[in-house]
Amino acid sequence: MRIVTSTAAMQRLGLRWRRAGTRVGFVPTMGYLHAGHLSLVHRARRLVAKRGIVVASIYVNPTQFAPTEDLSAYPRDLDRDTQLCRKAGVDVLFLPSDAEMYSGRDTGGYSTYVVEEQLSQGMEGGARPTHFRGVTTIVAKLFNLVLPDVAVFGAKDWQQAAVVRRMTCDLSFPIKVVVAPTRREKDGLAMSSRNKYLSAEERAQATILCRALKLAKKVVISSRTPNYSDVLKKELAALIATQPAARLDYLEFFDGETLQPVTAVTRGAHMALAVFIGRTRLIDNAVLK
Amino acid sequence: MRIVTSTAAMQRLGLRWRRAGTRVGFVPTMGYLHAGHLSLVHRARRLVAKRGIVVASIYVNPTQFAPTEDLSAYPRDLDRDTQLCRKAGVDVLFLPSDAEMYSGRDTGGYSTYVVEEQLSQGMEGGARPTHFRGVTTIVAKLFNLVLPDVAVFGAKDWQQAAVVRRMTCDLSFPIKVVVAPTRREKDGLAMSSRNKYLSAEERAQATILCRALKLAKKVVISSRTPNYSDVLKKELAALIATQPAARLDYLEFFDGETLQPVTAVTRGAHMALAVFIGRTRLIDNAVLK
Repeated sequence: MRIVTSTAAMQRLGLRWRRAGTRVGFVPTMGYLHAGHLSLVHRARRLVAKRGIVVASIYVNPTQFAPTEDLSAYPRDLDRDTQLCRKAGVDVLFLPSDAEMYSGRDTGGYSTYVVEEQLSQGMEGGARPTHFRGVTTIVAKLFNLVLPDVAVFGAKDWQQAAVVRRMTCDLSFPIKVVVAPTRREKDGLAMSSRNKYLSAEERAQATILCRALKLAKKVVISSRTPNYSDVLKKELAALIATQPAARLDYLEFFDGETLQPVTAVTRGAHMALAVFIGRTRLIDNAVLK
Repeated sequence: MRIVTSTAAMQRLGLRWRRAGTRVGFVPTMGYLHAGHLSLVHRARRLVAKRGIVVASIYVNPTQFAPTEDLSAYPRDLDRDTQLCRKAGVDVLFLPSDAEMYSGRDTGGYSTYVVEEQLSQGMEGGARPTHFRGVTTIVAKLFNLVLPDVAVFGAKDWQQAAVVRRMTCDLSFPIKVVVAPTRREKDGLAMSSRNKYLSAEERAQATILCRALKLAKKVVISSRTPNYSDVLKKELAALIATQPAARLDYLEFFDGETLQPVTAVTRGAHMALAVFIGRTRLIDNAVLK
């Protein structure tokens, strides 16, 4: 496995692969890797086959964090990540620096952003107003540096994947966006680097997110008529409130493609939620079927 | 010369060229071509040499026009443009349609924009607040469809060239942006598709833009001390006011790289201005040396 830290070197490799006709699969991450990330790497490998190249990047992108958020606390373990990538069959691990990615951002030397103005409005975009602008900007930049044929994103960040897919299509990047399923712990908790923040007590209560999804599924599947989202939201909020460390940030039912909220929830609708467990903000989502 | 109207076909060609290692030079235009555009084509040819490919695009991009502006009136003559491109040695003329470029924009099907938030703020960006967002968005899109190695822009739109160069660098497009000098009519009027709007009477008065630039040069070159921009602006505004059809929109002195206004104007400073001649808005700029 080759480790690349310079953006210029990364782009030279990308251009060389394109010229050689080598298929490139790309998995952008913020590091502190878990089995969810590794499943994206394996998916990328299957997509480009044995002769293709799999690139993973680790970059904790400052522009997708608000000043009040956990940028500086975000967990990092580069040695472990490097080992995991090597073992998972990553060919190139791209580790760009802030200095190169946003050269001179504090002094007016960086000033371009990519904004998606529709799918990014609700849910995570409502709770974190500058988040998706940071995501679309860094993904566009990484796309131009790695020049992949296909990029793999995780379904746990469903809205992010939808926003990235829309951005890729709108700006005509010659890249296919693939979304791979959420990986879960045995008790159903969606894998996330932020799970590391949880105390043992909080870890036990954190399953409330997937339990809320499970209850919503059960209600929707067993109903012969649509459920009003307001009624269902109240029922799920009450479930979440049974956990003393839990504080609901948002809970939404929506169309999986357009991300538009649905008021009459039926099978096939999506549900997403964000819940603070203590000081740790977790998200999860699922299609109700 | 090949004419391509489909975005998918254009991107297939771009990918094929990249794979073949063919150098591609790109000249994006809004059509109604004049000698200024053709000089950009010749520059692109020199940059990619005989074996390279020169692509010109003609697309009157709706998102860079405000509702009050001249989108529908913008001059078009596709037959003549096609002939001129063929004669100038263009290899591929790309003529995308609104339907493909902004698929479903009116119905929420298009929602991604590229914004540059610093160089785009004053001058044209001040006078036309949504203009540069349209420019950076369409240029990013065209870059992804044509996949050129080098793109050539005209110095007449100095701020546009600076904004595009910044966007290209910030988003790490693997593309070199080249700026070619303004072409002028014999009497000094900068060539522009919008000159077509001028009546004979207005056409005579339109030289006031380049005469103002000439006067500024003369003052700056002959001064042994800096000239205060406010004083110089007044003098130039008075000159422009001598033309009954002329109405000054803005006039600015600035640093050619950062586009920051300068208050003490010395040799090497840039000047740009926008003037309505009757109902036609013209722009021009020069370095004062």
